[in-house]
Amino acid sequence: MRRIAFFLISIATVGGIVAFTATASRHFDQEATPIFVTDIPPGYRDWKFISVAHEEGNLNSFASILGNDIAIKAYREGKLPFPDGAIIAALHYRFVSSEENNKVFGRSQSFVAGSPTNIQFMVKDSKKYASTGGWGFAHFNDGKPADEAFMKTCFPCHAAIKDRDLVFTRYAP
Amino acid sequence: MRRIAFFLISIATVGGIVAFTATASRHFDQEATPIFVTDIPPGYRDWKFISVAHEEGNLNSFASILGNDIAIKAYREGKLPFPDGAIIAALHYRFVSSEENNKVFGRSQSFVAGSPTNIQFMVKDSKKYASTGGWGFAHFNDGKPADEAFMKTCFPCHAAIKDRDLVFTRYAP
Repeated sequence: MRRIAFFLISIATVGGIVAFTATASRHFDQEATPIFVTDIPPGYRDWKFISVAHEEGNLNSFASILGNDIAIKAYREGKLPFPDGAIIAALHYRFVSSEENNKVFGRSQSFVAGSPTNIQFMVKDSKKYASTGGWGFAHFNDGKPADEAFMKTCFPCHAAIKDRDLVFTRYAP
Repeated sequence: MRRIAFFLISIATVGGIVAFTATASRHFDQEATPIFVTDIPPGYRDWKFISVAHEEGNLNSFASILGNDIAIKAYREGKLPFPDGAIIAALHYRFVSSEENNKVFGRSQSFVAGSPTNIQFMVKDSKKYASTGGWGFAHFNDGKPADEAFMKTCFPCHAAIKDRDLVFTRYAP
């Protein structure tokens, strides 16, 4: 039960990049020790916009998914797999009702980004992260990387969508 | 009743940049004919991320609010009023449940950007748009500007938040 609860929390956490239940990952080397990303990629707040997402449930999060130039180019050209150097970021915030907007509208209809909760990254390097489908996963709370137990839940989930190179978020035009 | 319905629709439409009920606009020249923006500012899809928003109600929209470099700089420095040249864009999409994500999660919790609905802009030019608080307003459906009757609802709403230079969206860190 504890294990299930943890898993659901980790699903809710990933928001934009979106986790997945673990099934097939037989094409990847299950024996190798996964390498996680422990440094925040510089300049990510200036990256271009990919899409938005909202997760209900435990976290009730609002996500903005951004990509560096290599990721954006691949998205726009519809090229899969993503080339080495591509990085996708998911900036998560609390999904909060905007009282100041609602007061004006005269009804509860407006939701905005509240305080930031975490930032996640997928970093493509087909050699360095070969054991996890070529992607290095990252999750930062207040600038600090999540622990290994948490990080081990990323790849099994994403591995289920191998046909989209482990990336859930679709590009918003 | 028709008039009320139209107004509510126009409130719902503005999403991220967020409309306002008309009250005080006595500091602006009410007699001058407002000038609306009829050309889509080039390159807006590459602009930097300001924040996200969701409006329930008629449109059930998902918005990503982006800014050009002048707007982003002003936001980050907390400078008001926004300088001439600042442009803020609100890209609106349908707020849709993601069946493909929900199937994996085993419950309905994931919402993503659906088909695009409209794009709105606020363009700062204190001389050109003097009669509307220095901001030129724009709304495009499928690349075509909205009609004058619709556009006349923008300024009276935004004018109510003069202390934030008519801009509703706050910067998400």
